[in-house]
Amino acid sequence: MSEVEEKQMMYRHSMSHVLAKAVKELFGKDKVKLAIGPAIDNGFYYDFDIASSITNDDVAKIEEKMKEVIARNEDFKRVELSRAEALEMFKDEPYKVELINDLAEEETISAYYLGEDFIDLCRGPHVENTKYLRGFAFKINRVSGAYWKGSEKNKMLQRVYVYGFLDKNDLKKHINMIEEAIKRDHNKLGRELGLFTTVDYIGQGLPILLPKGARIVQLLQRFVEDEEQKRGWLLTKTPFMAKSDLYKISGHWDHYKDGMFILGDENKDKEVFALRPMTCPFQYQAYLNEARSYKDLPLRYNETSTLFRNEASGEMHGLIRVRQFTISEGHLMCTAEQLEGEFKNCLELAIYMLKTLGLYEDASYRFSQWDPDNREKYIGTEEEWNEVQGMMGKILDNLEVPYKIGIGEAAFYGPKLDIQIKNVWGKEDTLITIQIDPMIAEKFGMEYTDKDGSKKNPYIIHRTSIGCYERTLAYLIEKFAGAFPTWLAPTQVKILNIADCHLDYANEVCAKLSNYGIRVEVDDRNEKIGKKIRDAQLEKVPYSLIVGDNEVAEGSVSVRKRSVGDTGAVKLEDFIDKILKEINSKALN
Amino acid sequence: MSEVEEKQMMYRHSMSHVLAKAVKELFGKDKVKLAIGPAIDNGFYYDFDIASSITNDDVAKIEEKMKEVIARNEDFKRVELSRAEALEMFKDEPYKVELINDLAEEETISAYYLGEDFIDLCRGPHVENTKYLRGFAFKINRVSGAYWKGSEKNKMLQRVYVYGFLDKNDLKKHINMIEEAIKRDHNKLGRELGLFTTVDYIGQGLPILLPKGARIVQLLQRFVEDEEQKRGWLLTKTPFMAKSDLYKISGHWDHYKDGMFILGDENKDKEVFALRPMTCPFQYQAYLNEARSYKDLPLRYNETSTLFRNEASGEMHGLIRVRQFTISEGHLMCTAEQLEGEFKNCLELAIYMLKTLGLYEDASYRFSQWDPDNREKYIGTEEEWNEVQGMMGKILDNLEVPYKIGIGEAAFYGPKLDIQIKNVWGKEDTLITIQIDPMIAEKFGMEYTDKDGSKKNPYIIHRTSIGCYERTLAYLIEKFAGAFPTWLAPTQVKILNIADCHLDYANEVCAKLSNYGIRVEVDDRNEKIGKKIRDAQLEKVPYSLIVGDNEVAEGSVSVRKRSVGDTGAVKLEDFIDKILKEINSKALN
Repeated sequence: MSEVEEKQMMYRHSMSHVLAKAVKELFGKDKVKLAIGPAIDNGFYYDFDIASSITNDDVAKIEEKMKEVIARNEDFKRVELSRAEALEMFKDEPYKVELINDLAEEETISAYYLGEDFIDLCRGPHVENTKYLRGFAFKINRVSGAYWKGSEKNKMLQRVYVYGFLDKNDLKKHINMIEEAIKRDHNKLGRELGLFTTVDYIGQGLPILLPKGARIVQLLQRFVEDEEQKRGWLLTKTPFMAKSDLYKISGHWDHYKDGMFILGDENKDKEVFALRPMTCPFQYQAYLNEARSYKDLPLRYNETSTLFRNEASGEMHGLIRVRQFTISEGHLMCTAEQLEGEFKNCLELAIYMLKTLGLYEDASYRFSQWDPDNREKYIGTEEEWNEVQGMMGKILDNLEVPYKIGIGEAAFYGPKLDIQIKNVWGKEDTLITIQIDPMIAEKFGMEYTDKDGSKKNPYIIHRTSIGCYERTLAYLIEKFAGAFPTWLAPTQVKILNIADCHLDYANEVCAKLSNYGIRVEVDDRNEKIGKKIRDAQLEKVPYSLIVGDNEVAEGSVSVRKRSVGDTGAVKLEDFIDKILKEINSKALN
Repeated sequence: MSEVEEKQMMYRHSMSHVLAKAVKELFGKDKVKLAIGPAIDNGFYYDFDIASSITNDDVAKIEEKMKEVIARNEDFKRVELSRAEALEMFKDEPYKVELINDLAEEETISAYYLGEDFIDLCRGPHVENTKYLRGFAFKINRVSGAYWKGSEKNKMLQRVYVYGFLDKNDLKKHINMIEEAIKRDHNKLGRELGLFTTVDYIGQGLPILLPKGARIVQLLQRFVEDEEQKRGWLLTKTPFMAKSDLYKISGHWDHYKDGMFILGDENKDKEVFALRPMTCPFQYQAYLNEARSYKDLPLRYNETSTLFRNEASGEMHGLIRVRQFTISEGHLMCTAEQLEGEFKNCLELAIYMLKTLGLYEDASYRFSQWDPDNREKYIGTEEEWNEVQGMMGKILDNLEVPYKIGIGEAAFYGPKLDIQIKNVWGKEDTLITIQIDPMIAEKFGMEYTDKDGSKKNPYIIHRTSIGCYERTLAYLIEKFAGAFPTWLAPTQVKILNIADCHLDYANEVCAKLSNYGIRVEVDDRNEKIGKKIRDAQLEKVPYSLIVGDNEVAEGSVSVRKRSVGDTGAVKLEDFIDKILKEINSKALN
């Protein structure tokens, strides 16, 4: 943390005492019981136990009262207490008593006065006097429920979140960012645009792609499968479940069982199945189906593969954290000599995808390594890990990949290059991964006959080329705030007839566009043209074609482009030429 | 059964006694214990308990001995026995004793002598004398293991299968049919052609589509999705599992639970999930996502949907009976007035698919109705079933569908039109189904506001348009004996260079074809051209292009068409024109 950041954290922390004091003064000293009030990365919060609810009206009052406390130029004063003194001092604050009792025997107990009449259990440090807080920019963000100690077995408290920054401009920027995030958040916008939904009785983490969302994913899948085919990948379609026998060979049963959905009971049933969390051991069967020689390598298998992970309910988030997802997964078997070149091909494919989708600038790279202090999480020996990580490091350096290292982020069978993307809330997740696996081929008896007649195990590269489609869709929604590039837009063109007498022409235009495979609709509602234009804009349709008397007479369309506004009338044929070029080039608008 | 068929069954049955007598005479009367020997639809069999194995050499001897028994002109003679007499008479035949003890108290026990020295427990009837069997055409087909009473807890016996027909020509035809079936059987040919495989440690009924098979399914799926889109269907992608809560609403929990894979234990776990056996309740969520009015109807949703059915291991068969399959499933919500028209659209789509795939002539139609004697299998009342079946019967009659009726074959929620196809072994299965469902919409609260403002439940049509892709692939393999129409062939063109010096030109031709999206390979092995031609023929590649000195000089290719043989040299451009026309028209060759 930089010096300025440390200072900011101290100020936030001091501000949380100001907040607590203000709330006590407003709601009554004895009616407010204090829990905890830490600084966080965009400000601070405090958890209160108050019988009455803190309302929206109260929020303004609390902010006023905080300014009043600051204006009083009150001192922060540290005192150190014995356990007995502390328990006596906080005897009316049951949460503080619990915190004191939780402290280790030998711990120094400190508290801070703010003025004469408010004291809080605290390690500090703080500013010396509230006069230093005068320039501190803050704004109460929201009040929400929070369980004491985060456990639903405990009482629900009221948490007051406050944004707080040393610099007024930082607060402004943060609030702007939040407002933008709210507008772009795929979990809200994606539902509003009719791209997906979730349903309680189906379950969390199991999103339903509605026709518009399903169309985008269909387009992405075809694009990826076709591009992979061009680059020499062979499509497979393998089953989504297998007997436990398979996972015992692959190592998933020992190293990944908690993440899998199991069908049946090992103690009772003759056959126990599990839904697959990864495609690897299934796709290996294509390799194993024939005897292989060095002449067959590299062998590249791709699959539009559905996977299942038994994640905890609390971890689910929209299309980003889900229990079932579909991914462009691939496995490539090659010789040691081919490894670097093939790794490069995989990386180039991933980068081509990111660039085509407009996500390239947002990506960062993580070289995910094993954690030698946590060996039971991995197969293989220290020598094997050092060797493959050394090899991969060299490849990444040769390719000048600007990576950070992530210790303990490797797969259980080998190291990974993870391409990371942040969502609008700043949370980072992996979108694409390329992994080198030197160990599993042997477990499955995957061999090839080399030039000299000897049998060898191939290296395996595990890779995705676009990552999971649900997650990719989420990032695209957020990136484009729902205004997808024309080639991906569920509806590409909306035809708006000014009056009923123009409807025949509108339908004629629609049929012509449709013949070219353009996704087009006529808005034939009996509404004013202004309303139709606004609605098409809200739906984020790339092109609205307005047709009235002039257009009918001239065989033209008046084009309104989503990102630009009206661009005037053109011959229908010219519009078709233009939009087809845009679609075929996958332009990012 | 016709009179001739009844006669044939009697002859087959008599022949099974001849078989048993022959085996006793060959292997020793006391060393052979007799189990059962019924007539079946292509002949008869007999199960024997013999210590030594019946070998291939024995088969010829048994046939000779059977002819000898027939030539003796021995009488079949019926005797009726009390239980005590029967038990005494068969005291050395433990399986017969068990059969006698299994008989109901009041049952008449009869047995048949064949000559003086052989008697078998039997109901008859039989021919009077073996002289009538002289013209009977028979051939031992195979010897295989069979558990006594079909239970693996019992002893494994040796079953001798014999083809048997009154008419020599029928036997010949049957053997030809079997030979053809063996050649076409998708479960053998599909593996030989590298279309799919299965693996023990993954499990039965979970086929792995290898690159060639996966490519065909990919092409079929795109074709179906595009055709459905043209016909106004809206694509969805919905999750493959849900909480039990969903299936309790849909009725699957009560009426289909045994067929589902369950994840978790109702008595232990907070949430129990199940893999979906049908798409219906998932796709309904798209309808439920918005308030609907009569103006929105019909609403047609399609999905390339993966389903899971917990079938018994013994029922698995190649790509036809599987535990996981992917299907072009759709659900359509409409008003009562729209029902007939929409049903017709669904049928037309199915017929269009069958015709395009060349399966139309092999299809038959079954109107699958409920079984009123088995009411617990269904939801709804007798009135509701009578009404919807009456309505569906009228629609089918109006459309002049030549259906047979299948009692008890309905879905639990409504009647079906099933389009049936037989595999090469004569076993019939459903490929496509169109169902009318008047009941489920209410359960899910699916409504629309009608013109008069009243709320109504829509009718739902459940339908497939091509059926499950795995099964369709199986029928296509059998129909075309692996020689797929060019548009579906995994490899469409193979380029065969005569010598190494023609390889550059071969690669150039390959690149040109590939640019047009044609699936093409160069056979650049250092092999004689004759061998390359034979191998391409074995792989059933539609076109082989032979390139040598002349072709290089003239920019031509010598075309060998799979179904025709050599068709001479043509300019490369002309070949490309021709094959693209063939592919785009989806010609059946």
